[in-house]
Amino acid sequence: MTRTLNDLPTPVLILDRSRLLANVARMQARAKQLGVTLRPHLKTAKSVMVAELAVGKSGPITVSTLAEAEYFAKAGFRDITYAVPMAPQKLDQVGALIKSGVDLKFITDHPAVAQAAAEAGQRLGVTFRALIKIDCGLGRAGIAPDSDILLPLAQKLSGALSQPGVELAGVLTHAGHSYGATSLAEIERIAEDERVAVVQAATRLRAAGFACPIVSVGSTPTALFAKDLTGVTEMRPGNFVFFDLFQQGLGTCAMQDIAVSVLATVVSHHPARNHVLIDAGGLALSKDTGANRNVPGTGYGRVCRPNEALPLDGMNVHDVHQEHGLLGGPDAPKVDFAAHPPGSRLRVLPNHSCMTGAMYDRYYVTDGGSEIIAEWDRVNGW
Amino acid sequence: MTRTLNDLPTPVLILDRSRLLANVARMQARAKQLGVTLRPHLKTAKSVMVAELAVGKSGPITVSTLAEAEYFAKAGFRDITYAVPMAPQKLDQVGALIKSGVDLKFITDHPAVAQAAAEAGQRLGVTFRALIKIDCGLGRAGIAPDSDILLPLAQKLSGALSQPGVELAGVLTHAGHSYGATSLAEIERIAEDERVAVVQAATRLRAAGFACPIVSVGSTPTALFAKDLTGVTEMRPGNFVFFDLFQQGLGTCAMQDIAVSVLATVVSHHPARNHVLIDAGGLALSKDTGANRNVPGTGYGRVCRPNEALPLDGMNVHDVHQEHGLLGGPDAPKVDFAAHPPGSRLRVLPNHSCMTGAMYDRYYVTDGGSEIIAEWDRVNGW
Repeated sequence: MTRTLNDLPTPVLILDRSRLLANVARMQARAKQLGVTLRPHLKTAKSVMVAELAVGKSGPITVSTLAEAEYFAKAGFRDITYAVPMAPQKLDQVGALIKSGVDLKFITDHPAVAQAAAEAGQRLGVTFRALIKIDCGLGRAGIAPDSDILLPLAQKLSGALSQPGVELAGVLTHAGHSYGATSLAEIERIAEDERVAVVQAATRLRAAGFACPIVSVGSTPTALFAKDLTGVTEMRPGNFVFFDLFQQGLGTCAMQDIAVSVLATVVSHHPARNHVLIDAGGLALSKDTGANRNVPGTGYGRVCRPNEALPLDGMNVHDVHQEHGLLGGPDAPKVDFAAHPPGSRLRVLPNHSCMTGAMYDRYYVTDGGSEIIAEWDRVNGW
Repeated sequence: MTRTLNDLPTPVLILDRSRLLANVARMQARAKQLGVTLRPHLKTAKSVMVAELAVGKSGPITVSTLAEAEYFAKAGFRDITYAVPMAPQKLDQVGALIKSGVDLKFITDHPAVAQAAAEAGQRLGVTFRALIKIDCGLGRAGIAPDSDILLPLAQKLSGALSQPGVELAGVLTHAGHSYGATSLAEIERIAEDERVAVVQAATRLRAAGFACPIVSVGSTPTALFAKDLTGVTEMRPGNFVFFDLFQQGLGTCAMQDIAVSVLATVVSHHPARNHVLIDAGGLALSKDTGANRNVPGTGYGRVCRPNEALPLDGMNVHDVHQEHGLLGGPDAPKVDFAAHPPGSRLRVLPNHSCMTGAMYDRYYVTDGGSEIIAEWDRVNGW
């Protein structure tokens, strides 16, 4: 029996496949134009179906947790980079995945972790493949490309010839500060900084005699607006599959490109407070308020009718409690309550699709209309 | 084999049972002292084991989702109030639970929902029990106690004698604005406002001839500091089982009362940026920053050694990305990196335990030491 948006319990996560396909095609064209491999970061979608649409059935992909690595490995993916700095305790789990046939690479920027990897690899009888994390200006993880510890770290990651334990797979950076840009020109400049940093590190490593096969960059804004990626081998954007209000405010996508939304039900009206109450709150939407940086007043999301692409003016989610979302509010124009009776449905476009998606175990997939054409699972947790 | 904190993968959610028991005993004593029933709100713990410690094996309890209602019903709980305004589409699911033997009450403040409940009850052959939601100053859901629609709403919820469909079970309010108080004296005043509002509504209903058996209040701050609950029959605090940094900053608990924390692993150091990187970020901790209102600089959580109750100075989580937490930072005193080598463990006290807990499917339970004495499940989602 055909199910529609009206048949679903709320809140649920809706994925518009036609938008997803267009977003994926846009990024595939970018990778081709720039001459690099697309290794999408599945931290956003956490979904085999989405990964397969982006890169086919075996990879290459990027993941943010070992739960993702195991989920994708089970589905047949074989070329996976775990792009959060490695904890020594996780080496055994990675070793087991490598033994199962997965080329699972990890990152580090700390000599003690490199040492632990070499020892664990020898103990487990596997050769780990590690990338050195380079900081290109974000200031989160990574060493500077001109750091004094780059070469000693590479040395530690190069193992012994007879019993390697670990080998250097390359260098990797992430220009997450592109999210703080205030213009597309600034994103272009940050993309060039990202490229220069990681290529500089690769050049130093090669000059010192180390192989450095992978030179990896990636964030959705820089992947979309880089002018040139000479010297780079791959890019790892993640958010582009869905986009969100943050990206729309930054100028990297249109409102009509946002592919995920939370379907919610109107549960009450409070005319004296000028708000409509929906059953999607801080858990269903997440408490990420990042989109307000670019578009003040966004609140916790913008609201569309189920079959309309553009949000309704004056109906932003101005406040959330755990299971309550408040639309309209004291600073908004007078709400048209008759248009949204209790039981009517609305879709909330998320501020940050990575955070909102993580609250749901599946996508209800549409092709932009009301009909549910599929359910796709997700992997959450750790 | 005995497992300890060192054996767990990270990030994971740790629950200190001894603190939980003390927190529960404190609230049980409050309910007894105030002469009301404790109907804890399980939106925080979402756990049968926690609910049983608080009120025994069948209730009374409060829930925030129908997923919680079904989970607790399956575990044998029979007296449940679903305290988020009812959506008409959820009536069939509630009806099925009632038919299975659960006294599942819900709330509304809208005549259209009352009408839908009456019709659905008659169609399904059940008598729904509804409470009218009263606003006592929070301004989220509920009507004012002196609202003109109180009596018409009660009329709609009183059904027909021959075929009731729905009946009025009472009135319910939530002084969530107690979280915005700046002193314990202000919490006391808000607790009295909460009591007065709901008792006024009950009095009006009874004067008009309606039965109003349940008169329900509840928030953790007001439950802890109310002076008198004359006219009230029950209270529904939720957060008290675990507390968190918000409550500690508000003055309702001590740091040593916080019963949940996120166990994380150090993955790198960046001395030039004065931060330690852990594998618990915006998903593992939540992006709730509420605790900074009372204690600026709290960031996304405070950090303890695994076996210490008090947080380390200068090691707050000052920034998070999806899977990265940054401790220390440019505004903190110089970090003692040698004390926290890669692979070492730390516990993060959460800003808001309701939001942080929702990211995990289970608790690893300790009695304050390193040994894991149990795993308790949780119900998430909707």
